Amino acid sequence: MIYHDTIVALATPSGAGAIAVIRLSGPEAITIASSVFQSVSGKDITKQKSHTLHLGHIVDDTKVLDQVLLSIFKGTNSYTGESTIEISCHGSTYIQQQIIQLLLRKGCRMAQAGEFTLRSFLNGKMDLSQAEAVADLISSDNEAAHQIAMQQMRGGFSNEIAKLREELLNFASLIELELDFAEEDVEFADRTQFNDLLNRIEFVLKRLIDSFAVGNVIKNGIPVAIVGEPNVGKSTLLNALLNEERAIVSEIAGTTRDTIEDELVIGGIGFRFIDTAGIRETKDVIESIGIKKTFEKIEQAQVVLFLIDSLQLIIDDENKLKIEIEKIKNQFPLKPLVVVINKIDSLNQEQKKSLSKKLAVINYSSLIKISAKENIGVDELKNKLLSFVNTGALRNNETIVTNTRHYDSLLKALEEIQKVKYGLQTNLSSDLMAIDIKQALYYFGEITGQVTNDELLGNIFANFCIGK
Amino acid sequence: MIYHDTIVALATPSGAGAIAVIRLSGPEAITIASSVFQSVSGKDITKQKSHTLHLGHIVDDTKVLDQVLLSIFKGTNSYTGESTIEISCHGSTYIQQQIIQLLLRKGCRMAQAGEFTLRSFLNGKMDLSQAEAVADLISSDNEAAHQIAMQQMRGGFSNEIAKLREELLNFASLIELELDFAEEDVEFADRTQFNDLLNRIEFVLKRLIDSFAVGNVIKNGIPVAIVGEPNVGKSTLLNALLNEERAIVSEIAGTTRDTIEDELVIGGIGFRFIDTAGIRETKDVIESIGIKKTFEKIEQAQVVLFLIDSLQLIIDDENKLKIEIEKIKNQFPLKPLVVVINKIDSLNQEQKKSLSKKLAVINYSSLIKISAKENIGVDELKNKLLSFVNTGALRNNETIVTNTRHYDSLLKALEEIQKVKYGLQTNLSSDLMAIDIKQALYYFGEITGQVTNDELLGNIFANFCIGK
Repeated sequence: MIYHDTIVALATPSGAGAIAVIRLSGPEAITIASSVFQSVSGKDITKQKSHTLHLGHIVDDTKVLDQVLLSIFKGTNSYTGESTIEISCHGSTYIQQQIIQLLLRKGCRMAQAGEFTLRSFLNGKMDLSQAEAVADLISSDNEAAHQIAMQQMRGGFSNEIAKLREELLNFASLIELELDFAEEDVEFADRTQFNDLLNRIEFVLKRLIDSFAVGNVIKNGIPVAIVGEPNVGKSTLLNALLNEERAIVSEIAGTTRDTIEDELVIGGIGFRFIDTAGIRETKDVIESIGIKKTFEKIEQAQVVLFLIDSLQLIIDDENKLKIEIEKIKNQFPLKPLVVVINKIDSLNQEQKKSLSKKLAVINYSSLIKISAKENIGVDELKNKLLSFVNTGALRNNETIVTNTRHYDSLLKALEEIQKVKYGLQTNLSSDLMAIDIKQALYYFGEITGQVTNDELLGNIFANFCIGK
Repeated sequence: MIYHDTIVALATPSGAGAIAVIRLSGPEAITIASSVFQSVSGKDITKQKSHTLHLGHIVDDTKVLDQVLLSIFKGTNSYTGESTIEISCHGSTYIQQQIIQLLLRKGCRMAQAGEFTLRSFLNGKMDLSQAEAVADLISSDNEAAHQIAMQQMRGGFSNEIAKLREELLNFASLIELELDFAEEDVEFADRTQFNDLLNRIEFVLKRLIDSFAVGNVIKNGIPVAIVGEPNVGKSTLLNALLNEERAIVSEIAGTTRDTIEDELVIGGIGFRFIDTAGIRETKDVIESIGIKKTFEKIEQAQVVLFLIDSLQLIIDDENKLKIEIEKIKNQFPLKPLVVVINKIDSLNQEQKKSLSKKLAVINYSSLIKISAKENIGVDELKNKLLSFVNTGALRNNETIVTNTRHYDSLLKALEEIQKVKYGLQTNLSSDLMAIDIKQALYYFGEITGQVTNDELLGNIFANFCIGK
């Protein structure tokens, strides 16, 4: 696809830094850049090779705006598949604005969100799922999300889909051929082989669809509700769960540290901790409103941690905790509930014995004794939390679906494939089967972008940042 | 100067954007980068030319961290004067951190604030005043500040100082020579020429020292106190003063807009508006505290705008405003006071006549009638504000001193030069004069960095951002 306009945008985060990068792409990128750039060595940049860097000044008429480094990417040998210029200027917002304004006056127009990547897709440099992975990659904030986005950007997912699509296309053309010879009643497509293929496709689609559960969790993090009174040590626990990685990161000056205390990365997986009040038995109306709210928050979570002060547990009646556990279990029978007994470091020998007795009575299987303060049992709790994420696919480097749009298309493709399979079993006529096959091919094509429409593209790229 | 370690830092603003740039500088920059970079075309980057760009992947052992563009700057042909690598990666904070951590493990160390520029200075790529201009350039947020920083970075200021220093050095060596032949009482240095030189130096120094007044104003903005009751239309006035440039800027998506309403750029000069209450005559203790505070705020300002609602003025006794003006004038005889009569659009013919009569009685010269709402008289007010800035030097592209450190050294140099001049007039002995000349040379050298010490450098570069 050939664009006639040249787009420009700031590619680095807005705000002041040491340097900023301004990106131009389009047929006039190099000529427009050359009209405002004076190389220190007097070179004509329109005559320079692709993938070279040039020191010089951005000049507005006679006014020197900045000393910059200019990168040249010629022809299709660029991210967008168009002539591209990157201007690495000093990082003041004022300079960025002045240079962009100058380039706009010289004939560029402001790029829309994701427009560089859209051009890359439309110029055949990447397929649609790879383009979507670019946005995922930029927004990935933990190892697992990054790994999946990286795999998808490098074509892992597309390859798997494209291969199946090709095999299916192959059969589709044989079936189409049968239609041409309908009166002779021949079978070009081997039905046994076709059935094998459909089974394989079904298997892969199911695996991909199943992977969305973990993919989604990895992309968006796992919500964990912490049920517990204010003084049971919630923030000490969150601090203890903060892994060392994070501590290292905060030492790297120039990187910002997320201070949202309740979003933690454990073993490469993001967990979002939702703070809730306790669920103590009460007759008080206001307190029972509190319990209702707690239940609402538990509803949003995938895992529930019930955090209790071990001393409080010793003081309480032994059935109290049991009743509370049952209350949550009755309300949310499918949500994993982990009881975490905190502050065990503060107990003396006698209290420890007393606690053991109580716990024997309560007899709840998923229970961990910790001291968040002294970092006792915290690793066990981490492993417990990770055990709720089926990271097998991740470890085996399998393709994982994280994108709701892909998930949707996969579900629809599966439905069509199952129709085709049923048609094959019931000796459906080739012409009717061909319709289902085409529909399945259509949904495959939606994922990789072989089938697109403007609205779809608009939706996808609107979520990108400007400059990418 | 040869460094043995290789430094690394994020050069773009922290946070997520389309891309981020990580910069390495030092003897091992290229070899360390090559140990983590795999070119897509299989090239060995240690064998590539300077100023070339290469597409590839950053790989940690077998794990692919990101697809990146790598820029190579070899030998002294870089910003720092050392081998330099710039890695343009995807803009997620996670990726930035992973790559920087990998490079640290491979033998880089984190750069300190301003360390790239410090190396540039120590490697003789720029002098100290140019290095300081880099920081000014990055923090410049208006045209005048940008222009001065740009001129200084390109060596304008240094050249002027260096030329004078050289001429002075020349005479100093002749005077030193006289000391060697002290017993023979010869004069190698022509006293008339020397006196001429000292006059020239004195003239230049005085001009530079004088320019600091405007330089400082340009760098830090001009504080303007607005004296006025809450309902006189202060915010409407500030909006009217917002120039169109600013409006255009806010249209460029991806750039942040300063929302600090009371910092405005007028004609390329920054003005900081300080809001104060009125100074109406009162016997009330609390109100008189208000007046005291208003006076304190006026104290910080260089210009005072007295904003009045025209209708209020018509209602008030005609001497009231006159008294108020006198009150400010008596307190601050040297501060320009502009009386701004707002809301003249709301007056009917009769009220306009009444206003004119009052103003004739008040008879104050620096008075402007405006309607901020209807944009009447706003340009006149802008020109009035600009008239308080002596931008002559700016217009004539003269060297302007903005740096307190330079100002300080210039003052000290002037003092020494005047001592030398006095010595010359009073036939001071050559050896004593030589001491004063050396001291003057020392202060010149402080500006350009020919004379430095670690503490001075530490102070200067600590104010830089990381990655520059």
